[in-house]
Amino acid sequence: MSEKVVLTYGTFDLFHIGHLNLLRRLRQLGDRLLVGVSTDEFSKLKGKQPIISFTDRAEIIRALRCVDGVFPEECWEQKAGDIRKHCVSVFGMGSDWEGRFDELKAYCEVIYLPRTEGISSTEIRKTLKILDRAHTRELKQALDLVSSIVERLD
Amino acid sequence: MSEKVVLTYGTFDLFHIGHLNLLRRLRQLGDRLLVGVSTDEFSKLKGKQPIISFTDRAEIIRALRCVDGVFPEECWEQKAGDIRKHCVSVFGMGSDWEGRFDELKAYCEVIYLPRTEGISSTEIRKTLKILDRAHTRELKQALDLVSSIVERLD
Repeated sequence: MSEKVVLTYGTFDLFHIGHLNLLRRLRQLGDRLLVGVSTDEFSKLKGKQPIISFTDRAEIIRALRCVDGVFPEECWEQKAGDIRKHCVSVFGMGSDWEGRFDELKAYCEVIYLPRTEGISSTEIRKTLKILDRAHTRELKQALDLVSSIVERLD
Repeated sequence: MSEKVVLTYGTFDLFHIGHLNLLRRLRQLGDRLLVGVSTDEFSKLKGKQPIISFTDRAEIIRALRCVDGVFPEECWEQKAGDIRKHCVSVFGMGSDWEGRFDELKAYCEVIYLPRTEGISSTEIRKTLKILDRAHTRELKQALDLVSSIVERLD
């Protein structure tokens, strides 16, 4: 029997445990896991502005034991071609994409897997923002103080 | 001949290409790479406040093809014991720690490797800060405006 190939795509910015959990679960669905990493240009087209460059994001995904191959994702249209080219049996994405790739069922099995709760690149950005608030808060206090002076002068 | 074990330690917060490059270079110095990942408590003691929890940081390091074993780093004093316990031949750290662990030369080879230029958890935080500046900048403009009003009132 030939090996079962699983395929997924993503930006994988600020690599975190949610990415790893998803990739591991996908890997368990078959014998080989291929990952299309979104280029910087395609990420922007998807409305994302990656902090980390494509080269570095792809290199990190390639370094994982659960990943067997990495290639660039450059456009929405390449998926059907990639599935045929790599003899893919399962196309899997996080459940945030639920239903979005159902047209690929014409070529292979399409699966949406649950995401890890409470972690995402967006969450990491939020946490860092909170830590950066002190600076903003001081400025806000100064502004309040000056405002109160202006009020008393009126 | 017995296998050559390499050992390193680190917090590995916001996992990035600099971490990966260092771990790969360390792995090339021997046959097995062991990594002591700093617990949240020990990271704080080192003056670092990790964004990502110990469990998740350790899990990511463990998922790398170039890493053969992971254990927690809980205090400064455990290194000599770890070296003996795991029959370590090479103790390696990034060059930001240059000279700091020379006393371990009594137990094994001690090597400091160059870090990847222009990337660190601190750099990532800085980039995110710049993206978050817009908010701060607006507040600063408002403050300048109020200040100029106060000056004219004086």
